[in-house]
Amino acid sequence: MSMSPNPPTLRQRVRSIVETRQFEHTITAVIVINAVGLGLETSPEIMSSVGRVIYTLDRLAIAIFVVELALKLFVYRLNFFRSGWNVFDFVIVSVALIPASQQFSVLRALRVLRALRLVSVVPSMRKVIVGLFSAIPSIGTVILLLGLLFYISAVMATKLFGAAFPEWFGTLGASLYSLFQIMTLESWSMGIVRPVMEQFPYAWAFFVPFILLTSFIVLNLFIGVIVNAMSEATDEEAHDEREEILSELRALGEELRNLRRTVDGKN
Amino acid sequence: MSMSPNPPTLRQRVRSIVETRQFEHTITAVIVINAVGLGLETSPEIMSSVGRVIYTLDRLAIAIFVVELALKLFVYRLNFFRSGWNVFDFVIVSVALIPASQQFSVLRALRVLRALRLVSVVPSMRKVIVGLFSAIPSIGTVILLLGLLFYISAVMATKLFGAAFPEWFGTLGASLYSLFQIMTLESWSMGIVRPVMEQFPYAWAFFVPFILLTSFIVLNLFIGVIVNAMSEATDEEAHDEREEILSELRALGEELRNLRRTVDGKN
Amino acid sequence: MSMSPNPPTLRQRVRSIVETRQFEHTITAVIVINAVGLGLETSPEIMSSVGRVIYTLDRLAIAIFVVELALKLFVYRLNFFRSGWNVFDFVIVSVALIPASQQFSVLRALRVLRALRLVSVVPSMRKVIVGLFSAIPSIGTVILLLGLLFYISAVMATKLFGAAFPEWFGTLGASLYSLFQIMTLESWSMGIVRPVMEQFPYAWAFFVPFILLTSFIVLNLFIGVIVNAMSEATDEEAHDEREEILSELRALGEELRNLRRTVDGKN
Amino acid sequence: MSMSPNPPTLRQRVRSIVETRQFEHTITAVIVINAVGLGLETSPEIMSSVGRVIYTLDRLAIAIFVVELALKLFVYRLNFFRSGWNVFDFVIVSVALIPASQQFSVLRALRVLRALRLVSVVPSMRKVIVGLFSAIPSIGTVILLLGLLFYISAVMATKLFGAAFPEWFGTLGASLYSLFQIMTLESWSMGIVRPVMEQFPYAWAFFVPFILLTSFIVLNLFIGVIVNAMSEATDEEAHDEREEILSELRALGEELRNLRRTVDGKN
Repeated sequence: MSMSPNPPTLRQRVRSIVETRQFEHTITAVIVINAVGLGLETSPEIMSSVGRVIYTLDRLAIAIFVVELALKLFVYRLNFFRSGWNVFDFVIVSVALIPASQQFSVLRALRVLRALRLVSVVPSMRKVIVGLFSAIPSIGTVILLLGLLFYISAVMATKLFGAAFPEWFGTLGASLYSLFQIMTLESWSMGIVRPVMEQFPYAWAFFVPFILLTSFIVLNLFIGVIVNAMSEATDEEAHDEREEILSELRALGEELRNLRRTVDGKN
Repeated sequence: MSMSPNPPTLRQRVRSIVETRQFEHTITAVIVINAVGLGLETSPEIMSSVGRVIYTLDRLAIAIFVVELALKLFVYRLNFFRSGWNVFDFVIVSVALIPASQQFSVLRALRVLRALRLVSVVPSMRKVIVGLFSAIPSIGTVILLLGLLFYISAVMATKLFGAAFPEWFGTLGASLYSLFQIMTLESWSMGIVRPVMEQFPYAWAFFVPFILLTSFIVLNLFIGVIVNAMSEATDEEAHDEREEILSELRALGEELRNLRRTVDGKN
Repeated sequence: MSMSPNPPTLRQRVRSIVETRQFEHTITAVIVINAVGLGLETSPEIMSSVGRVIYTLDRLAIAIFVVELALKLFVYRLNFFRSGWNVFDFVIVSVALIPASQQFSVLRALRVLRALRLVSVVPSMRKVIVGLFSAIPSIGTVILLLGLLFYISAVMATKLFGAAFPEWFGTLGASLYSLFQIMTLESWSMGIVRPVMEQFPYAWAFFVPFILLTSFIVLNLFIGVIVNAMSEATDEEAHDEREEILSELRALGEELRNLRRTVDGKN
Repeated sequence: MSMSPNPPTLRQRVRSIVETRQFEHTITAVIVINAVGLGLETSPEIMSSVGRVIYTLDRLAIAIFVVELALKLFVYRLNFFRSGWNVFDFVIVSVALIPASQQFSVLRALRVLRALRLVSVVPSMRKVIVGLFSAIPSIGTVILLLGLLFYISAVMATKLFGAAFPEWFGTLGASLYSLFQIMTLESWSMGIVRPVMEQFPYAWAFFVPFILLTSFIVLNLFIGVIVNAMSEATDEEAHDEREEILSELRALGEELRNLRRTVDGKN
């Protein structure tokens, strides 16, 4: 900030590049191209003809991401990790660098998660994600309650029906999965409860309340999120207007008190 | 606009016909009759007895539509295309004029889309459609996010399960369709995930989060539309009332300042 | 209304009976007992033992209903039919009097509709029903739009898939039913669209947009009803408060103008 | 409350222990550990190795619960039962004390309900449950209406389809269960209505209106709960602000009247 400016340091010059809109747009383009390439990889015909090009482009994209993050780390040092989005980018790119041997098909499938970086570089998407997460605290207890209901129901289902229907309720995990399926109402009656009722005629007394309770709790989850979104979105303007009315009123009161003092002073 | 009016030109006279409510009602009636006729065409019994009548009525309806649009084009010239609804009508009628040979059963099936013209001629329906579309911008990013989630999940599903379950996850397109089915919760567990879990016991770790995420994003789509509709519908009246309060307050302030000036002037 | 009251006419005396709360409660009790009896009729065991009692009670209930309506008709004359609820009661009881021969099992099944009279005699239920219906006008156009979409889609589905899948899309009626099933998402993919796609690989291009469109329109139906209920329920109190603020403000303004006139008058 | 305090009675000392936060946390921990133990009991492998430990811990947990409730009963006497939550705890623990012989597997399965005590000891969960229940009165009549619709539909279905499809509609209970399944849209068409329509071609005229009506009533249930939650959550702040405006306005009016009196007094 001196009058005779020093020449900018290397770090300052890199920073001025990294923070341009053009830099951001380039990275966004690389992410999109990379995502399309990863999609094309699923087609054996395309891979047999232009597979090498796609493979090279993929390597190139990873190289660009590594350089990008290296530049940002050089500029921001450890402050880089203060932003959750940067940590997210760092983890995604790091995973891409793990040498995926042929056996670990899961790891290779995870590479497409790189396309999620689009969320972290496009501001409007970041905003939506932040909005989604901001709803979670207000519904945290309801989620806990749903979890408790699932746990208790799974333990009961395992003890009651586990021996007779091991595929659906044999273990706690199997019961949890089956109860999740029942909560989504998929084939709950024809697929699961009617067969169970052939052995346990009163099984409906377990499953119907379970469906009603989970539906009611999920409904309350929904309402929690809706009320949250509502009170944020629609009330702000009305609140501002009421604030304006109040300040206007207070100005009037002040005016009136002044007038009173004038009138009193004249006596 | 001169005092001695010129005789109206042909264009003005046509315009005065085209813009009458009677003209509009006639076109609406033709659309409805045409739509009923196209419905009757699906019944072989009816077609074998009065098929020629229906066929003639259909030709007649198209002729009326062509004349209608020709008149409107003559009146409004290129301004005609400034309204999206006119372009919509123009495309629908143009499609009807394509000679549909016997092979193109799809084109012949598309003829019933002409009934959609009802939406463009009935004002209350136009309003509903405009309302539906007005909600889209506020949910655009959420739709993009859902699309990204679908793309990433489809690439992963194709790579993970494509080889073992080619019918469901063999190609990117098949995976997208299957994931759409899973998002609608149709037979997701009994039909798809349980069979997949027989080969990949941890497949639930892919599909259950997919269902939770898409449900959560779709919920946010809903909320976006609801909040949008709410703040438009219910707040306008309250806003007007608050405006009235404010203007009343300002009038009071003015009155008070006047009074003050009078009191001060008396000194 | 003369000072020396005439003895009440028979009509007035009947009216004073018919309009007591006790009369209403008696009818409600008869409706409930009758409904329970009609439910018990579904059990062959109960009918074989106490069938005659139930049958007699049913006859008795109908007799009571006939007397009730006759009394009301005598009291209110043709004004009786001015209330929709009375017309509803009249039709329900009249249906019960049609001699149901053994063949018309449908007519005999309809007798249980008499339990619906509960809705017309319990005030809180009447209120809920009125509330349900009050939402309909605001969503009328959306329902029309949904109907149009169903009609167009059914005609197209019949023309495209009717020949190959006569059970699902053979007639306009079959198509409408199948599309309703698809709209409810029941077995839409595994049960219908996947089999259809085996013959018409691009069938998804018809059914997936249909699902998206109907879901979107139904969502708008929901929102219409919600916004309607909201603006009625929650805004009334706020509106009243704002009205109070406004009237308070106007009183203040009047006060101020009076003061001004006093001050001016002193000059 | 005398100046020279008596030594605290035993009851006072026990009370000061029972009401500490530490006591509450200890009970919460015991509930969680006990719930985990009951979950582990579902795994035969774990039970064969550390089954005795888990069994002992379970006995210990019950003992702690009994002592906890005994202490609370000693402290609060019969006031203990004034709180619904205490009654809930008392019933849950009492059930655990019933000697569950091997035959009553249901009673043994019910033991896991003890985990529900978590709801009564964690304040935020209590709040959620109270919130859930507070919505019920406003929707009570709608639930009654839904019940009436179910009862009438079940009687009709039993009479119409009971003879031909005894598994689904043979008894009133079977019909109620099948109609609940149809309301949840699970396999309603492919699983039930299409087979029924093969014998009764007009069965759709019963089931489709049933689906539409129940969906509409359930939608109104939802809206009732949402409107309830809304008007409570979002309007309170606005209401307070409007109250503040009103009191401010009244102060202004008072001020103005005082001024008037001063001006009048000067005459």
